[in-house]
Amino acid sequence: MRHAALIGLIVLLAGATVACAGDDESGLDAAVSAIADERGLSEADIEAALKTFVPSGGRDEYLMFASGGHAGQVFVIGIPSMRLLKSIAVFTPESWQGYGVGGVQTEETLAAGFYNDEEIKWGDTHHPALSETAGDYDGQFLFINEKANGRVAMIDLRDFETKQIVKNPFSNIDHGGTFVTPDTEYIIEGPQYAHPLGGEYAPLSEYDDKYRGYVMFWKFDREAGRIDESQSFGMELPPYWQDLCDVGKKVSAGWVFCGSLNSERDTGGIEAGNPPFEVGVSQNDMDYLHVMNWERAAEVAQSAPKVNGYPLISLDTAVAEDLLFLVPEPKSPHGSDVTPGGEYVIVAGKLDPHITAYSFEKIKAAIDSGVGESDPYGVRILPFDDVMEAQIEVGLGPLHTQFDGDGYGYTSLFLDNGVAKWQMGPPYHDEWKLVEVVPTQYNVGHIAAAEGDTVSPDGRYLVSLNKWATDRFNVVGPLLPQNLQLVDLTGEHMEVIYDMAMGVGEPHYAQIIKADKLDAWEVYPEVGWDPHQQAVDPNAPVSGQERVERNGDTVEIWMTATRSHFNPENIEINEGDHVIWHITNIERAYDATHGFALSGYNVGLSLEPGETITVEFDAENSGVFAFYCTEFCSALHLEMMGHLLVRPE
Amino acid sequence: MRHAALIGLIVLLAGATVACAGDDESGLDAAVSAIADERGLSEADIEAALKTFVPSGGRDEYLMFASGGHAGQVFVIGIPSMRLLKSIAVFTPESWQGYGVGGVQTEETLAAGFYNDEEIKWGDTHHPALSETAGDYDGQFLFINEKANGRVAMIDLRDFETKQIVKNPFSNIDHGGTFVTPDTEYIIEGPQYAHPLGGEYAPLSEYDDKYRGYVMFWKFDREAGRIDESQSFGMELPPYWQDLCDVGKKVSAGWVFCGSLNSERDTGGIEAGNPPFEVGVSQNDMDYLHVMNWERAAEVAQSAPKVNGYPLISLDTAVAEDLLFLVPEPKSPHGSDVTPGGEYVIVAGKLDPHITAYSFEKIKAAIDSGVGESDPYGVRILPFDDVMEAQIEVGLGPLHTQFDGDGYGYTSLFLDNGVAKWQMGPPYHDEWKLVEVVPTQYNVGHIAAAEGDTVSPDGRYLVSLNKWATDRFNVVGPLLPQNLQLVDLTGEHMEVIYDMAMGVGEPHYAQIIKADKLDAWEVYPEVGWDPHQQAVDPNAPVSGQERVERNGDTVEIWMTATRSHFNPENIEINEGDHVIWHITNIERAYDATHGFALSGYNVGLSLEPGETITVEFDAENSGVFAFYCTEFCSALHLEMMGHLLVRPE
Repeated sequence: MRHAALIGLIVLLAGATVACAGDDESGLDAAVSAIADERGLSEADIEAALKTFVPSGGRDEYLMFASGGHAGQVFVIGIPSMRLLKSIAVFTPESWQGYGVGGVQTEETLAAGFYNDEEIKWGDTHHPALSETAGDYDGQFLFINEKANGRVAMIDLRDFETKQIVKNPFSNIDHGGTFVTPDTEYIIEGPQYAHPLGGEYAPLSEYDDKYRGYVMFWKFDREAGRIDESQSFGMELPPYWQDLCDVGKKVSAGWVFCGSLNSERDTGGIEAGNPPFEVGVSQNDMDYLHVMNWERAAEVAQSAPKVNGYPLISLDTAVAEDLLFLVPEPKSPHGSDVTPGGEYVIVAGKLDPHITAYSFEKIKAAIDSGVGESDPYGVRILPFDDVMEAQIEVGLGPLHTQFDGDGYGYTSLFLDNGVAKWQMGPPYHDEWKLVEVVPTQYNVGHIAAAEGDTVSPDGRYLVSLNKWATDRFNVVGPLLPQNLQLVDLTGEHMEVIYDMAMGVGEPHYAQIIKADKLDAWEVYPEVGWDPHQQAVDPNAPVSGQERVERNGDTVEIWMTATRSHFNPENIEINEGDHVIWHITNIERAYDATHGFALSGYNVGLSLEPGETITVEFDAENSGVFAFYCTEFCSALHLEMMGHLLVRPE
Repeated sequence: MRHAALIGLIVLLAGATVACAGDDESGLDAAVSAIADERGLSEADIEAALKTFVPSGGRDEYLMFASGGHAGQVFVIGIPSMRLLKSIAVFTPESWQGYGVGGVQTEETLAAGFYNDEEIKWGDTHHPALSETAGDYDGQFLFINEKANGRVAMIDLRDFETKQIVKNPFSNIDHGGTFVTPDTEYIIEGPQYAHPLGGEYAPLSEYDDKYRGYVMFWKFDREAGRIDESQSFGMELPPYWQDLCDVGKKVSAGWVFCGSLNSERDTGGIEAGNPPFEVGVSQNDMDYLHVMNWERAAEVAQSAPKVNGYPLISLDTAVAEDLLFLVPEPKSPHGSDVTPGGEYVIVAGKLDPHITAYSFEKIKAAIDSGVGESDPYGVRILPFDDVMEAQIEVGLGPLHTQFDGDGYGYTSLFLDNGVAKWQMGPPYHDEWKLVEVVPTQYNVGHIAAAEGDTVSPDGRYLVSLNKWATDRFNVVGPLLPQNLQLVDLTGEHMEVIYDMAMGVGEPHYAQIIKADKLDAWEVYPEVGWDPHQQAVDPNAPVSGQERVERNGDTVEIWMTATRSHFNPENIEINEGDHVIWHITNIERAYDATHGFALSGYNVGLSLEPGETITVEFDAENSGVFAFYCTEFCSALHLEMMGHLLVRPE
């Protein structure tokens, strides 16, 4: 109860000064002490509380975009308040946003990611990437990959909605994505588990010959706000398990670096008496960092043969054209992260207590000098000693590294439960050395620092995305929330100042952008807006022209929504009719959103001010079905309803 | 900058006392002032920050269970920290929890709520109800209704997972649910928009004769942890729009009260030149509070004819058996809430500035005296003046009322943007009167106070579930988060101390329970546990007996999962095989959850420690499909994978 004594003393001080200080001050001191005492807050707690509290109506300084892990979504979190401002539906249908629940626009976006006839209605989102200009976040777009089925999605940050999903044509799984080139020319989707080309069948006995990694380079058309599939291409890689990537910047612009594991090319088989994968893929002391020249690859791809509709640069061509090199990296590597100036690639090996810094200058020199043996696929392996710049022992289970603007790196320690801060050598500081480690609870995976993977990191805040929570929160059953801990980087020492319970998913990676870089719409620019096209829908319902038209067995409806009614309110059709139903929210007021629920049919929409959505279905259920507004819009919200009457045949 | 001056003064005070008080104290004062100054925190902000901050590893005092609105889920929020501890998937599939994404148990739970052949994969959850014993929350179960398709779900609070969904047999829409009787004998699902029986077709011209409201009484079997459909029944009501209900307690035990609107029986039709619904249903000065004797109804239901498989008490029988009475209630009523002792029903009319208190004693007297005219359906209308106890003018747009333990009521004011606190008359206080109004931003719908609708409310905290947020948070596109404001009830005046951004849904109602009343499992009781049965699955995979068996075209797999491998790892089958795949997480450590993703098939599971899940599908996609753990479980988590090889035909 040391703090209690301390607090008591403050009360005395406050009391002793009432005469000269007046009531306000004693009021504050007394309140602070009384509340802290009652709530058992320590001195550090009081400071943390003040550092993270955003007053009613206040704004957060930064926004964090976190993957939702196997929730398949993206989460938007305010920093320093750590409030969940929004979940953005990406690969998993979500009805609050009306995403993939009857609206044809979002249903089509999702369908683009299906696997053959299999409707894949969930995702495992891993690494969000904000669009960049000259290596800095520009706040315009967000990309994210989906590991379970090898897909990439694009979110437009004008309205924070998913506009596009593309499917990897060469592999049905990925991991090392998404990472963007300095001006977002390409979005890189790195692989993970090796596959036969296109995910076709080949027995594991043919692993070395038939299984490969495939890295995708998705071309981005910023004007169109779309990934341009016609200009995208892939490159074949050896059947190692390529892991996380990072893109070169400044001095290393034009290159991309992906770590890997399983250089053993192990195929597991515990059921056959083999060692399990976790043993088989961890035998070698060194795996390989993949060093790729994406700028040159983009040129070579112009003349590469198309496979499954996309140019694919073969492994032989990649070798012949000097597009791919390997660098040994210590034991079971995970993260590979490029320093703000692009001078170094920082690699962390899960089973090695060091971070290893590779000099891009030395990598270039080694490439030009022609040194090095080849791997079984003819890929040149640059000698470790020729390209390694420095190593620092940071602790057990190092995974991922972020940076601040003062020449320091921060590396997550999965096994040691902490974040290590270390000093970079030239040109940042004179030597490479460990500074300190702050404990985090527990088993931290990725970390995200404010703009910490750009050419100009902000420092200030770091978030530790912890994988285990155990004793951190109230017990809410066997499935626990994640624990995202906010670390203050502004003091003499790193300090954990907030534990955020994340009870809606398991974020992997996250990026933190200065809030003032975003310029999202409050309402859609014009009435009749189709968010999928980001343009007015020429067929959008218009106020005063609402109607129902029958053409044979097809009934087309043009409906408007405003406080507090739909127009039309009652619609009578026949069982079996094909229904095309357009709805426009004609409101212009910020936050004047209307929902649309149709009973008996799987239709749940969210119509933001100005938005037009189209629903299409066959009226196979006869009866009386109410439709109503699901977003509490006004005092007469309950009255905002109507009837779809379906006459039986 | 008044606070700056104030802070400066505190620094002086602290400085002046360094000599006697030592460094710690001056350190604290200096820190508080410096941080508050930098962050622009007022005196009130500092107090609010300390009142809501829960230190790292600390526990919240209360848990709030909030509906997710049209997200279709339930959210669990810690109070006072207002952290989202968990989203519980109920009507909408959710892949982080593996709910409805391949696991047969949860797929079956969802399918029970489908409408004919239409797969309804979302919901509009409205009113959660915690199970009660003697009118007090017991922390065992949670119920919630789904408005869009008339369904009720049951969540088991041992593992915080949805176990059952039941579909209303008489109507395809509801609203006034869920509310439980004092010992959770029944869960009440009240209607909303009138329908023909069973949702069958009938033209609106036959509204008065063919359209009705149907209130469901779902019997709960606490031992079985299931709603017992065989003992549940319904009752026919006039075609008014029955709205929110509340169940009598103590002196009014055995009765239930539901407000209503549209006593006009308006059928809208703006497209035909009629006034829109919001005008048509708001013409009368009085609508009707429905007073129902559920205890007696349960007896009458024993001999009631079955309709659509359930006993249905007809309107004529309800009248003849004295099961239903009406009480006039002022203009466009919304909430009806019973006082802690059951003496009064508090009604708020959206278009009337008063709350109206009805005396249950007077209602009983009026019923017994036989006074009152009949409505067009023969239902007796008890005279307003005979049963009304008191009215208090509280402000514009009163909606819902909660209570504290000191004889005060709290009513949300949708139009005035605030929460009114008012004093109850005898036996609580000597007179009925308004105390004060605290402003909230903006358009508050429901409010929830700590155990505020039980026989023993706690007071202390109240949450204002605001419907509009506009300027409260950073702009994140046209769809805004909701704003849940925490109100401190412990001081001399009500104070808003926290704005929680709710960016995953639009909660309607919520209940707040003392955290220590819950006793959730940390891990499942035994290995091989089937959460759907809450028992060990006799066919669950067992460590050491993992295997794959073929029987004709059916392949059955018994797999175990543990850090850091699946067993078996490689499984080869033929295209077209029918696959039955059982997986057990054999871990016993708290938080040792493993996910299971199967590429190429729509399978995403979450296996908590001890849990067994079965997946069943036809292998229609040939090729090589990785499966892997989606929950970051260990340093070798990436290595926890295997291959499903599907040989082409």
